[in-house]
Amino acid sequence: MLYESLDKQNYRSYTAIMNKKDIRKNEIIGSSINLMYLRGYNGTSVKDITDAAAIPKGSFYNYFEDKEHYAVDAIHYYRSIIVKERFQVFENRSLSPLDRIKEFYDLSILKLKEREIPLGCFVGNITQEMGENSVLISEAASMFHSEITNLIYLALVEAADCNELNSPADLEKLAGFIVSSWQGTLLMLKVTADRSVLDDFICILNGVILK
Amino acid sequence: MLYESLDKQNYRSYTAIMNKKDIRKNEIIGSSINLMYLRGYNGTSVKDITDAAAIPKGSFYNYFEDKEHYAVDAIHYYRSIIVKERFQVFENRSLSPLDRIKEFYDLSILKLKEREIPLGCFVGNITQEMGENSVLISEAASMFHSEITNLIYLALVEAADCNELNSPADLEKLAGFIVSSWQGTLLMLKVTADRSVLDDFICILNGVILK
Repeated sequence: MLYESLDKQNYRSYTAIMNKKDIRKNEIIGSSINLMYLRGYNGTSVKDITDAAAIPKGSFYNYFEDKEHYAVDAIHYYRSIIVKERFQVFENRSLSPLDRIKEFYDLSILKLKEREIPLGCFVGNITQEMGENSVLISEAASMFHSEITNLIYLALVEAADCNELNSPADLEKLAGFIVSSWQGTLLMLKVTADRSVLDDFICILNGVILK
Repeated sequence: MLYESLDKQNYRSYTAIMNKKDIRKNEIIGSSINLMYLRGYNGTSVKDITDAAAIPKGSFYNYFEDKEHYAVDAIHYYRSIIVKERFQVFENRSLSPLDRIKEFYDLSILKLKEREIPLGCFVGNITQEMGENSVLISEAASMFHSEITNLIYLALVEAADCNELNSPADLEKLAGFIVSSWQGTLLMLKVTADRSVLDDFICILNGVILK
């Protein structure tokens, strides 16, 4: 599993409030999410998922209405377990508001660089492929993107209030732009041999945007 | 066809230097590219393509080795025909260097807003879905992204030389960041009900990045 060290701890606290069926559901997603992560929604069949989770194909439907609902649950799993720790950076009051934003992306890059294959952002990937094709997936993805945009927006407002930021921009638009830029950077990572696009993102974020 | 008015002229000049088989190949792509545009690579079958082009399934292989090669040719078609006019903005010396960049994105947004469904960028879409899964597609997509990054970079250098731009940033990184941000904006467009993310992109591009 790619996220083993990070996830065991998060997984334990998350599952403490879940019922047995939900726990099993998350175990199935945990064993199979990397397939959809790498191959995309249409590139992953229910059979692929059940093979990865080592369960009979039929039992998939005990946990998920169909593949579309699996994808929606996988988005929630991604948010609640895989990137949970990164989101918590915004609660860290020992960091300045801008440093919280920088730390969020520094941590994201650290995670990406740890892996041999840069899988990008699960939600970004599925947004691109399915955003226009599934209302259910689109809504779940939109909630994810809105949450991070809002956290960045609040940090930007705090930074402006304490004069850490002197940007002439509308801060709501600036927050959206940062989130979009990051997703675009992950997209570019898919066709470049080296990972310098990640460092370039940080360079422009820190040197131009968060000024 | 979505691009009818723009493309007829471009298509004529492009096909003047092509042989008969290549012309037919492009006609097939022209009649079917919107399927892969909207549904993605894995969501589009060879049968879907031949149905859209109104040709027998078997004859697909007279023109394309397989679906992967179709996708590569579709990337070239997208660059040579669909977005050709937009790329020519960078040759317009009556515009200042920064205005060329702004005009490029203004035109892109105009095209997006004309359509009922925001299809995004064909190459961006396929980069996201297939960038890690096909070397052929990845290389063709990378060439496309590199070309636009380079055009923007050259305009930024020219802008800096004539003091139109006073950015403290490394201009190569800045060019890459602009291209990434645009691709990320298109991705966000897939999960938002309104199209204000496009105007927000222009607002931050003009007000923060190109200063």
